[in-house]
Amino acid sequence: MKLLENRILKDGRIINGDVIKVDSFLNHQLDIELLDKMAEEIKTHFSNKKINKILTIEASGIAIATVLALKYSNVKVVFAKKKKTLNIGDSFTSNVSSFTTKKDYIVTVSKEFLNEDDNILIIDDFLAEGNALKGLIDISNQAKANIEGICVAVEKGYLNGAKSIRNMGYELLSLAVIDSIENGKFHFK
Amino acid sequence: MKLLENRILKDGRIINGDVIKVDSFLNHQLDIELLDKMAEEIKTHFSNKKINKILTIEASGIAIATVLALKYSNVKVVFAKKKKTLNIGDSFTSNVSSFTTKKDYIVTVSKEFLNEDDNILIIDDFLAEGNALKGLIDISNQAKANIEGICVAVEKGYLNGAKSIRNMGYELLSLAVIDSIENGKFHFK
Repeated sequence: MKLLENRILKDGRIINGDVIKVDSFLNHQLDIELLDKMAEEIKTHFSNKKINKILTIEASGIAIATVLALKYSNVKVVFAKKKKTLNIGDSFTSNVSSFTTKKDYIVTVSKEFLNEDDNILIIDDFLAEGNALKGLIDISNQAKANIEGICVAVEKGYLNGAKSIRNMGYELLSLAVIDSIENGKFHFK
Repeated sequence: MKLLENRILKDGRIINGDVIKVDSFLNHQLDIELLDKMAEEIKTHFSNKKINKILTIEASGIAIATVLALKYSNVKVVFAKKKKTLNIGDSFTSNVSSFTTKKDYIVTVSKEFLNEDDNILIIDDFLAEGNALKGLIDISNQAKANIEGICVAVEKGYLNGAKSIRNMGYELLSLAVIDSIENGKFHFK
Protein backbone atom coordinates (compact mmCIF):
# COMPACT_ATOMS: atom_id res chain seq x y z
CA MET A 1 0.00 0.00 0.00
CA LYS A 2 1.81 3.04 -1.35
CA LEU A 3 0.20 5.49 1.09
CA LEU A 4 1.47 3.57 4.11
CA GLU A 5 4.93 3.03 2.59
CA ASN A 6 5.25 6.75 1.91
CA ARG A 7 4.19 7.53 5.45
CA ILE A 8 6.80 5.12 6.83
CA LEU A 9 9.43 6.77 4.63
CA LYS A 10 8.38 10.20 5.85
CA ASP A 11 7.74 9.60 9.56
CA GLY A 12 9.11 6.17 10.46
CA ARG A 13 12.33 5.99 12.41
CA ILE A 14 14.93 3.32 12.96
CA ILE A 15 16.37 2.75 16.42
CA ASN A 16 19.28 0.47 17.31
CA GLY A 17 19.58 -0.70 13.72
CA ASP A 18 16.41 -2.80 13.65
CA VAL A 19 13.66 -1.38 15.86
CA ILE A 20 11.17 0.44 13.65
CA LYS A 21 9.29 3.30 15.31
CA VAL A 22 6.00 4.36 13.78
CA ASP A 23 4.88 6.13 16.94
CA SER A 24 3.66 9.26 15.23
CA PHE A 25 0.90 7.59 13.22
CA LEU A 26 0.39 3.92 14.21
CA ASN A 27 1.63 3.05 17.69
CA HIS A 28 1.24 5.93 20.13
CA GLN A 29 -0.28 8.79 18.18
CA LEU A 30 -2.84 7.46 15.69
CA ASP A 31 -3.51 9.04 12.31
CA ILE A 32 -7.14 8.04 12.02
CA GLU A 33 -7.50 9.11 8.37
CA LEU A 34 -4.59 6.82 7.47
CA LEU A 35 -6.08 3.96 9.50
CA ASP A 36 -9.36 4.48 7.66
CA LYS A 37 -7.66 4.11 4.27
CA MET A 38 -5.77 1.06 5.51
CA ALA A 39 -9.04 -0.48 6.66
CA GLU A 40 -10.58 0.18 3.24
CA GLU A 41 -7.68 -1.68 1.62
CA ILE A 42 -8.02 -4.63 4.02
CA LYS A 43 -11.77 -4.88 3.46
CA THR A 44 -11.32 -4.85 -0.32
CA HIS A 45 -8.64 -7.54 -0.14
CA PHE A 46 -10.80 -9.86 1.94
CA SER A 47 -14.08 -8.99 0.19
CA ASN A 48 -14.69 -12.65 -0.76
CA LYS A 49 -14.53 -13.74 2.89
CA LYS A 50 -17.45 -13.89 5.26
CA ILE A 51 -16.19 -12.42 8.51
CA ASN A 52 -18.09 -11.97 11.77
CA LYS A 53 -15.24 -11.17 14.15
CA ILE A 54 -11.88 -9.40 14.09
CA LEU A 55 -9.29 -10.72 16.51
CA THR A 56 -6.36 -8.52 17.52
CA ILE A 57 -4.02 -7.97 20.45
CA GLU A 58 -3.67 -5.03 22.81
CA ALA A 59 -2.73 -2.28 22.48
CA SER A 60 -1.70 -1.14 18.99
CA GLY A 61 -3.90 -3.55 17.06
CA ILE A 62 -7.11 -2.22 18.61
CA ALA A 63 -7.38 0.99 16.60
CA ILE A 64 -6.98 -0.67 13.17
CA ALA A 65 -9.36 -3.47 14.15
CA THR A 66 -11.93 -0.93 15.32
CA VAL A 67 -11.80 1.18 12.16
CA LEU A 68 -12.06 -1.98 10.06
CA ALA A 69 -15.02 -3.35 12.02
CA LEU A 70 -16.91 -0.08 11.39
CA LYS A 71 -16.78 -0.86 7.67
CA TYR A 72 -18.80 -4.04 8.17
CA SER A 73 -22.10 -4.51 9.89
CA ASN A 74 -22.35 -6.80 12.88
CA VAL A 75 -18.64 -7.50 13.10
CA LYS A 76 -17.28 -7.48 16.64
CA VAL A 77 -13.70 -6.90 17.71
CA VAL A 78 -12.03 -9.10 20.30
CA PHE A 79 -8.66 -8.01 21.58
CA ALA A 80 -6.42 -10.54 23.26
CA LYS A 81 -4.92 -9.38 26.53
CA LYS A 82 -1.26 -9.62 27.39
CA LYS A 83 -0.63 -10.99 30.82
CA LYS A 84 2.51 -11.79 32.70
CA THR A 85 0.71 -14.42 34.69
CA LEU A 86 -2.43 -16.46 34.35
CA ASN A 87 -5.12 -15.13 36.64
CA ILE A 88 -8.33 -15.16 34.64
CA GLY A 89 -10.72 -18.04 34.66
CA ASP A 90 -11.99 -19.73 31.59
CA SER A 91 -9.68 -18.56 28.84
CA PHE A 92 -7.75 -19.65 25.81
CA THR A 93 -4.09 -18.80 26.35
CA SER A 94 -0.90 -19.02 24.37
CA ASN A 95 2.71 -18.24 25.17
CA VAL A 96 4.46 -15.61 23.02
CA SER A 97 8.12 -14.58 22.84
CA SER A 98 8.37 -10.91 21.97
CA PHE A 99 10.82 -10.11 19.19
CA THR A 100 11.11 -6.49 20.32
CA THR A 101 11.46 -6.87 24.09
CA LYS A 102 12.93 -10.40 24.15
CA LYS A 103 10.49 -11.23 26.95
CA ASP A 104 7.79 -13.86 27.07
CA TYR A 105 4.18 -13.04 27.72
CA ILE A 106 0.86 -14.85 27.65
CA VAL A 107 -1.95 -13.85 25.30
CA THR A 108 -5.40 -14.49 26.67
CA VAL A 109 -8.90 -14.51 25.21
CA SER A 110 -11.94 -15.39 27.29
CA LYS A 111 -13.69 -18.55 26.12
CA GLU A 112 -16.89 -16.51 26.01
CA PHE A 113 -15.76 -14.48 23.02
CA LEU A 114 -14.33 -16.98 20.56
CA ASN A 115 -15.90 -20.19 19.37
CA GLU A 116 -16.40 -22.60 16.48
CA ASP A 117 -19.09 -20.41 14.89
CA ASP A 118 -16.65 -17.54 14.41
CA ASN A 119 -15.15 -16.65 11.04
CA ILE A 120 -12.34 -14.39 11.98
CA LEU A 121 -9.86 -11.98 10.52
CA ILE A 122 -6.72 -11.62 12.61
CA ILE A 123 -5.15 -8.15 12.64
CA ASP A 124 -1.92 -6.81 14.09
CA ASP A 125 0.26 -3.77 13.56
CA PHE A 126 3.66 -5.46 13.09
CA LEU A 127 4.89 -8.77 11.77
CA ALA A 128 8.50 -9.62 12.62
CA GLU A 129 9.03 -13.29 13.46
CA GLY A 130 5.27 -13.79 13.69
CA ASN A 131 5.22 -14.83 17.32
CA ALA A 132 2.26 -12.68 18.35
CA LEU A 133 0.27 -13.80 15.30
CA LYS A 134 1.10 -17.44 16.05
CA GLY A 135 -0.26 -16.89 19.55
CA LEU A 136 -3.51 -15.55 18.09
CA ILE A 137 -3.65 -18.45 15.61
CA ASP A 138 -3.09 -20.91 18.45
CA ILE A 139 -5.91 -19.35 20.46
CA SER A 140 -8.22 -19.37 17.42
CA ASN A 141 -7.47 -23.03 16.85
CA GLN A 142 -8.13 -23.86 20.48
CA ALA A 143 -11.52 -22.15 20.06
CA LYS A 144 -12.07 -24.05 16.79
CA ALA A 145 -12.76 -20.68 15.16
CA ASN A 146 -12.29 -20.48 11.40
CA ILE A 147 -9.43 -18.15 10.40
CA GLU A 148 -10.51 -16.47 7.14
CA GLY A 149 -7.40 -14.35 6.84
CA ILE A 150 -4.62 -12.48 8.58
CA CYS A 151 -3.51 -8.90 8.03
CA VAL A 152 -0.67 -6.79 9.37
CA ALA A 153 0.12 -3.16 8.74
CA VAL A 154 3.89 -3.48 8.56
CA GLU A 155 5.88 -6.62 7.75
CA LYS A 156 9.60 -6.91 8.29
CA GLY A 157 10.18 -8.77 5.04
CA TYR A 158 13.77 -9.62 5.92
CA LEU A 159 12.59 -11.90 8.74
CA ASN A 160 10.84 -15.23 8.43
CA GLY A 161 7.51 -14.37 10.03
CA ALA A 162 5.39 -13.97 6.89
CA LYS A 163 6.84 -17.10 5.28
CA SER A 164 6.12 -19.26 8.31
CA ILE A 165 2.55 -17.93 8.61
CA ARG A 166 1.90 -18.65 4.92
CA ASN A 167 3.48 -22.09 5.27
CA MET A 168 0.84 -22.82 7.90
CA GLY A 169 -1.71 -22.34 5.10
CA TYR A 170 -3.11 -18.94 6.01
CA GLU A 171 -3.83 -16.06 3.67
CA LEU A 172 -1.72 -13.15 4.86
CA LEU A 173 -1.97 -9.55 3.72
CA SER A 174 0.86 -7.16 4.64
CA LEU A 175 0.01 -3.56 3.82
CA ALA A 176 3.67 -2.52 3.74
CA VAL A 177 6.64 -4.88 3.47
CA ILE A 178 9.98 -3.48 4.54
CA ASP A 179 12.51 -5.46 2.55
CA SER A 180 15.64 -4.06 4.09
CA ILE A 181 17.02 -1.28 6.23
CA GLU A 182 20.28 0.08 4.83
CA ASN A 183 22.22 3.07 6.10
CA GLY A 184 19.25 4.06 8.23
CA LYS A 185 16.83 4.02 5.29
CA PHE A 186 13.78 1.86 4.59
CA HIS A 187 13.52 -0.11 1.37
CA PHE A 188 10.20 -1.65 0.40
CA LYS A 189 9.44 -4.77 -1.55
CA MET B 1 -27.21 7.45 27.82
CA LYS B 2 -30.08 5.00 27.95
CA LEU B 3 -28.65 2.65 25.33
CA LEU B 4 -25.45 2.11 27.32
CA GLU B 5 -27.32 1.78 30.63
CA ASN B 6 -29.57 -0.87 29.13
CA ARG B 7 -26.57 -2.73 27.80
CA ILE B 8 -24.90 -2.68 31.20
CA LEU B 9 -28.12 -4.00 32.75
CA LYS B 10 -28.28 -6.75 30.15
CA ASP B 11 -24.63 -7.80 29.84
CA GLY B 12 -22.69 -6.21 32.68
CA ARG B 13 -21.60 -8.38 35.55
CA ILE B 14 -20.56 -7.73 39.12
CA ILE B 15 -17.60 -9.56 40.61
CA ASN B 16 -16.49 -9.50 44.23
CA GLY B 17 -19.19 -7.01 45.11
CA ASP B 18 -17.68 -4.01 43.34
CA VAL B 19 -15.71 -4.97 40.22
CA ILE B 20 -17.89 -4.25 37.20
CA LYS B 21 -17.24 -6.42 34.16
CA VAL B 22 -18.31 -5.08 30.78
CA ASP B 23 -16.05 -7.47 28.91
CA SER B 24 -18.62 -8.53 26.36
CA PHE B 25 -19.05 -5.10 24.77
CA LEU B 26 -16.50 -2.57 26.06
CA ASN B 27 -13.35 -4.10 27.52
CA HIS B 28 -12.37 -7.29 25.77
CA GLN B 29 -14.97 -7.90 23.09
CA LEU B 30 -16.02 -4.60 21.51
CA ASP B 31 -19.50 -3.88 20.23
CA ILE B 32 -18.52 -1.44 17.52
CA GLU B 33 -22.10 -0.34 16.75
CA LEU B 34 -22.56 0.60 20.41
CA LEU B 35 -19.23 2.46 20.45
CA ASP B 36 -20.33 4.33 17.35
CA LYS B 37 -23.51 5.53 19.05
CA MET B 38 -21.55 6.46 22.19
CA ALA B 39 -19.16 8.49 20.04
CA GLU B 40 -22.09 10.28 18.41
CA GLU B 41 -23.37 11.25 21.87
CA ILE B 42 -19.93 12.49 22.95
CA LYS B 43 -19.48 14.57 19.79
CA THR B 44 -22.89 16.16 20.22
CA HIS B 45 -22.20 17.00 23.86
CA PHE B 46 -18.89 18.68 23.07
CA SER B 47 -20.06 20.27 19.79
CA ASN B 48 -19.20 23.77 21.03
CA LYS B 49 -15.57 22.78 21.65
CA LYS B 50 -12.80 23.00 19.11
CA ILE B 51 -10.86 19.76 19.49
CA ASN B 52 -7.77 18.67 17.56
CA LYS B 53 -6.66 15.70 19.64
CA ILE B 54 -8.20 12.93 21.72
CA LEU B 55 -6.10 11.68 24.61
CA THR B 56 -6.79 8.26 26.09
CA ILE B 57 -4.99 5.42 27.83
CA GLU B 58 -4.25 1.89 26.71
CA ALA B 59 -5.93 -0.47 26.20
CA SER B 60 -9.69 -0.08 26.62
CA GLY B 61 -9.86 3.64 25.86
CA ILE B 62 -8.36 3.23 22.39
CA ALA B 63 -11.45 1.87 20.64
CA ILE B 64 -13.82 4.62 21.84
CA ALA B 65 -11.24 7.32 21.08
CA THR B 66 -10.74 5.89 17.58
CA VAL B 67 -14.44 5.75 16.73
CA LEU B 68 -14.88 9.28 18.05
CA ALA B 69 -11.91 10.65 16.09
CA LEU B 70 -13.44 9.26 12.88
CA LYS B 71 -16.39 11.61 13.41
CA TYR B 72 -14.15 14.66 13.17
CA SER B 73 -11.71 15.59 10.47
CA ASN B 74 -8.06 16.01 11.33
CA VAL B 75 -8.39 14.86 14.91
CA LYS B 76 -5.61 12.55 16.03
CA VAL B 77 -5.70 10.06 18.88
CA VAL B 78 -2.85 9.78 21.36
CA PHE B 79 -2.94 6.90 23.78
CA ALA B 80 -0.87 7.07 26.94
CA LYS B 81 1.15 3.96 27.65
CA LYS B 82 1.18 2.16 30.96
CA LYS B 83 4.64 1.26 32.13
CA LYS B 84 5.93 -0.38 35.24
CA THR B 85 9.22 1.46 34.90
CA LEU B 86 10.48 4.52 33.12
CA ASN B 87 12.50 3.53 30.10
CA ILE B 88 11.49 5.92 27.35
CA GLY B 89 13.28 9.15 26.67
CA ASP B 90 11.58 12.47 26.37
CA SER B 91 8.16 11.88 27.85
CA PHE B 92 5.54 13.36 30.11
CA THR B 93 4.85 10.90 32.91
CA SER B 94 2.51 10.64 35.85
CA ASN B 95 2.08 8.12 38.62
CA VAL B 96 -1.31 6.38 38.91
CA SER B 97 -2.73 4.12 41.62
CA SER B 98 -5.13 1.64 40.10
CA PHE B 99 -8.44 1.31 41.88
CA THR B 100 -9.06 -2.12 40.38
CA THR B 101 -5.68 -3.81 40.79
CA LYS B 102 -4.45 -1.76 43.80
CA LYS B 103 -1.11 -1.43 42.03
CA ASP B 104 0.74 1.69 40.93
CA TYR B 105 1.76 2.29 37.36
CA ILE B 106 3.20 5.12 35.31
CA VAL B 107 1.34 6.70 32.41
CA THR B 108 3.57 8.00 29.68
CA VAL B 109 3.08 10.22 26.64
CA SER B 110 5.94 11.20 24.37
CA LYS B 111 6.66 14.94 24.37
CA GLU B 112 6.39 14.79 20.59
CA PHE B 113 2.66 14.19 20.64
CA LEU B 114 1.24 16.67 23.14
CA ASN B 115 1.93 20.38 23.31
CA GLU B 116 0.54 23.82 24.07
CA ASP B 117 -1.21 24.07 20.69
CA ASP B 118 -3.39 21.05 21.46
CA ASN B 119 -7.06 21.37 22.39
CA ILE B 120 -7.83 17.97 23.75
CA LEU B 121 -10.68 15.78 24.79
CA ILE B 122 -9.69 13.14 27.35
CA ILE B 123 -11.49 9.80 27.05
CA ASP B 124 -11.50 6.70 29.21
CA ASP B 125 -13.75 3.70 29.67
CA PHE B 126 -14.20 3.77 33.47
CA LEU B 127 -14.22 6.40 36.16
CA ALA B 128 -13.90 5.11 39.71
CA GLU B 129 -11.72 7.29 41.93
CA GLY B 130 -10.48 9.15 38.87
CA ASN B 131 -6.84 8.23 39.28
CA ALA B 132 -6.19 7.35 35.64
CA LEU B 133 -7.95 10.53 34.48
CA LYS B 134 -5.91 12.60 36.93
CA GLY B 135 -2.78 11.07 35.45
CA LEU B 136 -3.92 12.14 31.97
CA ILE B 137 -4.81 15.61 33.27
CA ASP B 138 -1.40 15.88 34.92
CA ILE B 139 0.32 14.93 31.66
CA SER B 140 -1.82 17.40 29.69
CA ASN B 141 -0.93 20.16 32.11
CA GLN B 142 2.76 19.32 31.88
CA ALA B 143 2.42 19.67 28.10
CA LYS B 144 0.47 22.94 28.57
CA ALA B 145 -2.25 21.44 26.37
CA ASN B 146 -5.72 22.89 26.73
CA ILE B 147 -8.23 20.38 28.13
CA GLU B 148 -11.55 21.11 26.44
CA GLY B 149 -13.42 18.30 28.12
CA ILE B 150 -13.32 14.84 29.65
CA CYS B 151 -15.57 11.89 28.90
CA VAL B 152 -15.94 8.43 30.36
CA ALA B 153 -18.21 5.61 29.30
CA VAL B 154 -19.07 4.33 32.78
CA GLU B 155 -18.88 6.27 36.04
CA LYS B 156 -19.10 4.64 39.44
CA GLY B 157 -21.27 7.38 40.87
CA TYR B 158 -20.92 6.08 44.41
CA LEU B 159 -17.22 6.95 44.43
CA ASN B 160 -15.69 10.40 44.51
CA GLY B 161 -13.91 10.40 41.15
CA ALA B 162 -16.37 12.52 39.17
CA LYS B 163 -16.76 15.06 41.95
CA SER B 164 -13.03 15.56 42.34
CA ILE B 165 -12.54 15.94 38.55
CA ARG B 166 -15.34 18.54 38.38
CA ASN B 167 -13.90 20.32 41.42
CA MET B 168 -10.69 20.74 39.41
CA GLY B 169 -12.79 22.82 37.00
CA TYR B 170 -13.15 20.38 34.12
CA GLU B 171 -16.26 19.59 32.13
CA LEU B 172 -16.93 15.90 32.57
CA LEU B 173 -19.42 13.81 30.63
CA SER B 174 -20.27 10.32 31.95
CA LEU B 175 -22.34 8.32 29.48
CA ALA B 176 -23.67 6.00 32.20
CA VAL B 177 -23.54 6.67 35.92
CA ILE B 178 -23.93 3.65 38.16
CA ASP B 179 -25.39 5.04 41.34
CA SER B 180 -25.32 1.89 43.39
CA ILE B 181 -24.96 -1.86 43.25
CA GLU B 182 -27.46 -3.62 45.47
CA ASN B 183 -28.06 -7.34 45.69
CA GLY B 184 -25.96 -7.86 42.60
CA LYS B 185 -27.98 -5.36 40.55
CA PHE B 186 -27.02 -2.09 38.93
CA HIS B 187 -28.92 1.09 39.69
CA PHE B 188 -28.40 4.16 37.52
CA LYS B 189 -28.61 7.80 38.36
